[in-house]
Order: sequence, then structure tokens, then C-alpha cells
Amino acid sequence: MSTVEIPGQQSASSLIPTLPGSHYTDAAIFELEQSRIFQSNWFAAARSSDLAKPGSFRKVEVGGESVLLVRGRDRGVRAFLNVCRHRGAQLCVEPEGALRNKIQCPYHAWTYGLDGALIAAPNLNSMADVNRDQLGLHTVSLREWLGTIWICLADEPPSFADTVEAAVTARLGDPAAIDRWAIDTLAVGRRITYDVKANWKLIVENFMECYHCATIHPELTEVLPEFADGYAAQYYVGHGAAFGDGVSGFTVDGSAGFETIAGVDADHDRRYYAITVNPQVFINLVPDHVIFHRMYPVAADRTIVECDWLYPQEVLDSGRDLDRSVELFHRVNQQDFDACERTQPAMSSRAYAAGGVLVPSEHHIGEFRDWVAAAIGH
Amino acid sequence: MSTVEIPGQQSASSLIPTLPGSHYTDAAIFELEQSRIFQSNWFAAARSSDLAKPGSFRKVEVGGESVLLVRGRDRGVRAFLNVCRHRGAQLCVEPEGALRNKIQCPYHAWTYGLDGALIAAPNLNSMADVNRDQLGLHTVSLREWLGTIWICLADEPPSFADTVEAAVTARLGDPAAIDRWAIDTLAVGRRITYDVKANWKLIVENFMECYHCATIHPELTEVLPEFADGYAAQYYVGHGAAFGDGVSGFTVDGSAGFETIAGVDADHDRRYYAITVNPQVFINLVPDHVIFHRMYPVAADRTIVECDWLYPQEVLDSGRDLDRSVELFHRVNQQDFDACERTQPAMSSRAYAAGGVLVPSEHHIGEFRDWVAAAIGH
Amino acid sequence: MSTVEIPGQQSASSLIPTLPGSHYTDAAIFELEQSRIFQSNWFAAARSSDLAKPGSFRKVEVGGESVLLVRGRDRGVRAFLNVCRHRGAQLCVEPEGALRNKIQCPYHAWTYGLDGALIAAPNLNSMADVNRDQLGLHTVSLREWLGTIWICLADEPPSFADTVEAAVTARLGDPAAIDRWAIDTLAVGRRITYDVKANWKLIVENFMECYHCATIHPELTEVLPEFADGYAAQYYVGHGAAFGDGVSGFTVDGSAGFETIAGVDADHDRRYYAITVNPQVFINLVPDHVIFHRMYPVAADRTIVECDWLYPQEVLDSGRDLDRSVELFHRVNQQDFDACERTQPAMSSRAYAAGGVLVPSEHHIGEFRDWVAAAIGH
Repeated sequence: MSTVEIPGQQSASSLIPTLPGSHYTDAAIFELEQSRIFQSNWFAAARSSDLAKPGSFRKVEVGGESVLLVRGRDRGVRAFLNVCRHRGAQLCVEPEGALRNKIQCPYHAWTYGLDGALIAAPNLNSMADVNRDQLGLHTVSLREWLGTIWICLADEPPSFADTVEAAVTARLGDPAAIDRWAIDTLAVGRRITYDVKANWKLIVENFMECYHCATIHPELTEVLPEFADGYAAQYYVGHGAAFGDGVSGFTVDGSAGFETIAGVDADHDRRYYAITVNPQVFINLVPDHVIFHRMYPVAADRTIVECDWLYPQEVLDSGRDLDRSVELFHRVNQQDFDACERTQPAMSSRAYAAGGVLVPSEHHIGEFRDWVAAAIGH
Repeated sequence: MSTVEIPGQQSASSLIPTLPGSHYTDAAIFELEQSRIFQSNWFAAARSSDLAKPGSFRKVEVGGESVLLVRGRDRGVRAFLNVCRHRGAQLCVEPEGALRNKIQCPYHAWTYGLDGALIAAPNLNSMADVNRDQLGLHTVSLREWLGTIWICLADEPPSFADTVEAAVTARLGDPAAIDRWAIDTLAVGRRITYDVKANWKLIVENFMECYHCATIHPELTEVLPEFADGYAAQYYVGHGAAFGDGVSGFTVDGSAGFETIAGVDADHDRRYYAITVNPQVFINLVPDHVIFHRMYPVAADRTIVECDWLYPQEVLDSGRDLDRSVELFHRVNQQDFDACERTQPAMSSRAYAAGGVLVPSEHHIGEFRDWVAAAIGH
Repeated sequence: MSTVEIPGQQSASSLIPTLPGSHYTDAAIFELEQSRIFQSNWFAAARSSDLAKPGSFRKVEVGGESVLLVRGRDRGVRAFLNVCRHRGAQLCVEPEGALRNKIQCPYHAWTYGLDGALIAAPNLNSMADVNRDQLGLHTVSLREWLGTIWICLADEPPSFADTVEAAVTARLGDPAAIDRWAIDTLAVGRRITYDVKANWKLIVENFMECYHCATIHPELTEVLPEFADGYAAQYYVGHGAAFGDGVSGFTVDGSAGFETIAGVDADHDRRYYAITVNPQVFINLVPDHVIFHRMYPVAADRTIVECDWLYPQEVLDSGRDLDRSVELFHRVNQQDFDACERTQPAMSSRAYAAGGVLVPSEHHIGEFRDWVAAAIGH
């Protein structure tokens, strides 16, 4: 295993600062983050398979906007602001469902194609001066990668390669490494949605470090003994935490999981990798499955986390029981989110006005801190 | 039928703008509307018959103030701020009820006549310098018209004739027309209160146009076929929408209603008229009854609507079933308020930052838009 | 009985003003009060006996801060901000409980002694530059008096003698008088917590005057007939309201209470004394028990009131029924808090924009008004 030290670790001081407490509680800062972070970056909005066939739609809340994801007749996925161009009614209010060949506003029946073009409206033909090309739905930039639909609300999105792909490469140390898990071919075996009463950044910071693992994750440290020392997989580049000697698989009791995913070679087998893609994605890679978290910030003190457990289709088809496989990280999630929820109330204390401290095994969180501060200009 | 085109319709463009989205969501604009619109204009607060006899009271929320309507021993109705002059306790906390010959504060027993004059307080006689004439309840201007109690919180209310009465005349085209329905003699056959999660202006705009009728009001367009074309009765001056050929009455299934109100002549029979009195009253006139809506804005995104179905007393005395008569507009209300509620969330979208568009059959909403904008100076 | 007139009573006018309405509703003023009043003054946080033995803790909310009260191994009580110095997790989330010999953060296991000193943390020994003396819990000033734990969040607390003790002396007219009840030796016979939807100042003002007693406290005025005249015990210095002739004890039906507390002499027997200690303590003294209120302001329109009924331990040990004893002031509390809750909504009315008026028997509230205004600079 080759490890590369990260800049933060070279700090002359053992303790470096976190963000100040107000960054986790102030509604004005949350609003700034909505525009400067969540609307300005690529955002993992859904799983491609959530839109099963032409006409399938999903409604997601991103950066304060209601966004409609729709699979077209050409089987491509598109994203639109969920707002009729006429008088603003939401086109879809259900979280997901199936449309026929069109998107029709249920208020005044303005009608759009699955590609967002305005195709009809009552009396439209009598409005000769109306250029319907200018009245299509507002489109939102979209990319698919890792079986995931990524959208960006910015007029000029940043480079997908330089941001999303680069974050994955930076963690795994190799652009091709992620392909071993062939995530776009995996299927959702289980989805659990968590409603966390904490700021999204507390959840990111929690995910990035393992200094808490020995204290709150007994099952995880049983499977990954090195985590008991407090150094997260994310502390290193290209490093996967090794399974314990007596551990057969990444399951709640260390019992055997499923077959190793075809592309995962011996170097990556029996290891756990964790990736953070700013601002709202966590990916965990283990030999037989992938755990994919998408966060949806709702308010300064509330975040929805949607977590998918992804397996090869043949594992799901076999009908084998996923429970022990899912239960390990479900418990980790619950333990982490409990910790975040007990941290949130202290963010408004005078004791945290200037923030807290990061120990050396947490220093890489300083990079996230600086990324956030630069994005919002605070 | 004589129709007069309204200014908006002469727009060179088919599409003209609505108010910007922030006008429907911003708490500061709502507060401004409370003072510049709801406190400054005549506001339909209750039905006169809600105060059945001397001592009857009703508590209403108008422009952010709790107002007490009280029928006096002289049988006149008066309105007061519902606040004791001593230490501010609310005099009445129940929505309605009966007082004896006085209004007594339940905190320290300061006691007012039904005319608001301070008549007694513990130890008051020992406070020689106190001028009790200056300590009566704060009175609120009040008018009764159409069997309705209209109040105005302004120190100098606008002319009732130039605002409320003029709005009715402007729609019906004739000051005497409204008298045909003798609304002050009608009795409340049914009252339904709706709690609508939408800005009050969305409800006004919805009521003013019929471009949505074909899409969401199947029962109404069955009774009034011309509404399927999208032109509201309010689009024209003096126009009543004609009942369909096979329609016997203004009922949910087009079956016969009740006898035509005595004063309604043949020209106005088998027709539906709709009136908006800014900022919060809608009146629907049909041959055998009147539907009277009063809106009570609660927050930028919430409005209470109280709707009365009014019939001649003899219809109510006959014990005949009102259900089919009431059900038609109750469904219309539900359909409209559902539409408003699905529109409200989009008001904060970037897609509606500059507002939406009004088609020609909605252009008269532009007058309401301009009236609001002028009132709040935005 | 010697009475001394208070300055307010010498006002040339019978009616003097209260605070303006916005002081009871404005969130910004509430925040200002949190820092300038509740963080800056001594605050009765709990009863000493709530922390029964070493390791006992209680979590209280004071001035917007979560404060941890902990009894140490030396049996002394200390107060700390309930925030870990590392990443800010709340150390204790339960309202009360028992710790072993340490306070361990459940997130990353940073561990503090019961005296707040940092004694251990994972990997701490490898951080040579860390001075753990600088990483103890933030301590909060603390005093015990009257069996009560008083804390102050100010860096330099005001003199306890000049504020808390002086308030008690000013009311009783004699520094030694309070010792007659030996409050620190009494035990909690009953505790009732009230969640009051009213501003804390309305509750103070209510407690300070008895002008409302005849109107809302039938049981209390039966026991203390002079209260029917509207002059509170607090109106005078050193005055205790006398029990009525047929009254045997301070109970809901005037039946006999318990034995008079040993130190209470004949001059103070069969009398009721009431003390307000700004900003949040009310103490009622009667011959056989003490009623001690602590207020915890939560928001501009919400206050938690915790009320203890205190008796000599031998009364509790005897197993005698406390119900009639407790019921009297429990009803008074309910009656008072109902009055405060019906007053709160009127504070935002234009009718109360400049406040209400105080009658002569309420003029001493003017001192509280001025104390608040001076503290917040408004």
C-alpha cells in the first residue's frame, strides 16, 4: 500500500480550526451555500435506474429548486425546473411516477414534450406573436456517470471531469480504479432514506474522519480493525482499509457476503474504500457491493440522506438475503447521524463561536473547510 | 349582451407579465400588504347575521389585528381592537359567542359597554385624574352592505362608494343591478371554511380568470359551457355566463335548483355573474342563490377562505336539501385551491423570479397586479 | 406592620406606562435580553438537591446556552458549557442523570474530569504540542444559596450580594428574615413544570401585582382577604399578607397545613410573603412551606416555569398528603399563566404599540420596566 501524506497533516500544530459555529446554524449562510455551492456544482440527484422507462419522472429538491428528471422517448434523461412557464404551477407534485408522452400542467393545460418543448396550450394558435420556442421548460444541465444522474443548476457548469471525476481519482489514486466496480451496471438492492436534524457539513465532516470509529462504530471496527486507530480510509490516497483476519465479508457480523464483483482484482478485494465528492456524495466500495449516499440539504439544521446499497443484478436475481450485508452500514449511518444530531445544538454556543479543533487524523477536513469557505466567500 | 373591452386586452402582446415570484413568498412584502392593503381598505369581516342579537360577538383577524365585532343594545354593530386598554389582555379569545351587557376583561376586570366606553374598573373611582373617556376601546370603522360587515382599520378610510360599491358596479355595469339579488335579505344556508396553503393573490388571480376552467372544473363547464373557452365572466362588464341548454339549475349535476330570487328578472335568470372586490371578496350570483367568499390572509403562504352559500329564508325554512346546490361551487373551490396550492411552491423558483405570463383571456388580471403594486409601492 | 412607600407610587399621575408591545414580541429584543439580562445576571438554574450525589448532572438552558451542572467527587457543584472542546458535540443530551467519575464525549471519547479538566483523548499523547490545561470544559460561575444553584454566564458576574441577596432583603426589609425559613434545609415535596405561551416579562409583571387577584384568584383571595383590594404583598417592604380569620392554613380550602417551620416566629406566622428576584425567580413564603419558581425563557412568546413546593424533610417523611397544600398555588399558577397567555397575542396590536398603563397598585412594576429597559438599552 502506497500512502501519500496530505498537506493538512504537515501542519506545525496538532490542532487546527474547524469552521466557526455560525456556519452550521445561520440561515443566511445556508442560503449562500444554496446558490454558491449546491446550485453551482454538479449534484447527484438520483440513480439512473430510478427512471425506468420513457415517461418515468422523479422530482428532486436541489439548491432550493424543485427539479424534474424525466426519461424521454429517446431513452435519454433530461432535467427541468418543475415550473410551468405560464403561471408557475408545479408540473409534478408526486415524488416520482410515470408520464405518458407529454408533460401537461394540470392548471391550464400548457403541454410540453418529454424534451421540455412547449407543444400546445389552449388558444395558443390565436396568439400569433408568441414564439413557442422561447416558452419551453427551463432545462438544467445533466450528466450520467456511475449509474447516477448528476445535474447542475449553473448557467455554465464547472468541468465534470475536473470536479466529480477528479474527486474520485484523487481518492483512489488512479482514474481507472473506479471502473473495477462497474457501478453503472449495479442495481439497487436496498434504499434507506434518513432525515437528519443536522447541518450537511457536519455529515460531510463525520464521513471524512474515522477518529470517532472506535467510539461509536463497534461493528465497523470489528470488520475493519485498522479503523480503531482513528485513521480513515480517506486520510490516504489509494488506500483501502483491510478486512480483519477472521472476517469473511463486509456484513454486520463479519460473515460471508456475496461473490466479489467481477472487475475487482485481488489488490482491491477484502478492502473498503471511501470517497467524498463535494458537496453531497459519499461512495463506499467493498468487494461485493457499493454503498452510495446522496445528501439533500433542507435547512441549516436538517438534511435528507438517501443511501443506496448496490449489487450485481445476478445477486438480486438469486433472491439471497441482503439483510446482513445492508445492516452493517445502516448501523454505521444511524450511529453517525446520531452523532451529528447531538453536535448540531452546540453549534450555536459561545463555546463554538470560533469553531472547534481538528486533531491530526482529521486534518484533511481542513481541505473541505477551505473549499466551503472559498465557495461562499466567508 | 353588451361587452366592453378592458384596457389590458388592448395590449400589443399576447403575453403580459404577472407580479414577480417574491411577491407571493416574501414575509416583508406580506407585512407591507397587511398595512397598505388589508388595514387600508374596506375588509369584509363577517356576515351581519353572524351577530344575531345584542351582545353577540365575533372575533376576526384583519391586517394582523384581532378585531372584535359586537352587536350593541341598540342593535347596531361596532368593531373594536380586541385589546384591553389597561394591560392588553385579549377581551375575547373564543371565535364567537354572546356577551351580556358589557365587555369585561377577564384579567383585571376593566369593564366596557357594548359601545366600547370604559364604564368601570377596580379602584377607578380613586384615580381622580383619570379621564375615562380617553380609555374606551379603540374603535374600528364599520359599514354594513349586502348583509356583510365591512370594517376598515385606517384612520381615514377610503370612500366606501368609490371602492367597494364601485367594484361591484364596474363588474355588473349598473349600480342597481346588485339589488336584484337582495343579498342583505338572504340567509346563510351553508358555510364552509377552507385553509389554503397559498398566497392570497394566487387565489384572487385564480378567481379572476377562467382559462383554467376547461382543465380543472368539469362540473362547472358542464353547467356553463362558454367557460370551456376560457373567458371568465369577469372578463366582460355586465356579462353573465349562460347556463347550458340542458341545464336546469346551478347544481352539481345540472338538476333544478330553487325558485329564482324574486328580484332577478329574465335577463339575469339562467346566468352566472362573478365579482371580485379587492382585496378579499368574491361574489357569485346565480338565479336562486349567492355564493360569498371572504378571504383572511394569514401568512405569505397561507389564507383562510370562508365561503357562505346564501338563500332566501323561505328556501331554508322549507327544509329542502341544499346538497346538490352547495356541492357545485364547493367542488370548484376545492379544485381552485388545489391549483393554488400547487402553484405556491414554484413562486420561490428562479424560473418565476420575474413572474409568469398572462394570456389574452387573463389580461384583466394585469389590473389587479397594478393595483397591488401601486398599493405597496413595489 | 411597617410599610414604606415605593417611588413609583409617588407619581403625579394615576396611570404610568408599561413597556411598549414590541418588547414582548420582537425576536431581536429577546436575543438582546438573552445576552444583556439572562447571561449577565445570576440565574437560578436548579435546586441543589437535584444533584443528589457525586456524578449527578442536570442540563439546563440559560441565556441560549446549554449548561451542564455536575456534582463532583468533592461533593461540590460545578457548571460547564455542555459542549466538547474538540468538535462541539453535546456532552449530555438527557435532562438529568448520573455520570461515573468522568464526563466522556460520546462522539470521539474526549474525556473530562467531573471538575471539567481534560484528562484523556484518543491519540492525545502523540500530540506533544497540545496543552491540555487549555482544553478543559468552559466553566460557568456558580453560587449556592437558599438550596438553589445560581449560575452566571458573564465573564465578570455582578456581586451576588448586591443583586440576588439585596432583592430578597429589599422585599423582606431585613437581611436575616429569609433565614427563618431555612430554605436550604427544605426538601422538594412536589415539582410542577409549566409551558407558558407568553413572554417572560408578562409573567414577572403578573407575579408582581395583585390588582388581578380578585378577578382570577378566588381560592387565593379566600385565604388572603386583603388581596381582594388589589395590593400585592410586593407592593410593600416587609409586609406579609395576613391569613383570613377563618383560615387554618395555606391550602386550597383553607384547612390546616403542616407545622410551622421551626424558625418562623409569631410575627411571620399566618402570613404570606412574595419575593421577585430579577430576572427569573419568584419565592413565596408561608408558615409551613416555601414555593419557589424558576423561569426559563425559550422564545419571545414562550417560557418554561419550574415550580418547587418545599417542605421540611420530616413533613415529607411523615407521608402526609400534600395535595391540598400544593393545589392552592398550582391553581394560582394556572390562573396566572392563562392570563399571561391571553395577553401575549395583544402585544403585537397597534393598540399596544406604545404599551398599556399601570394603575397605582401596579406602579412598582415601573421599577421592573426601568430595570429591563436599562439592561437592554431600549
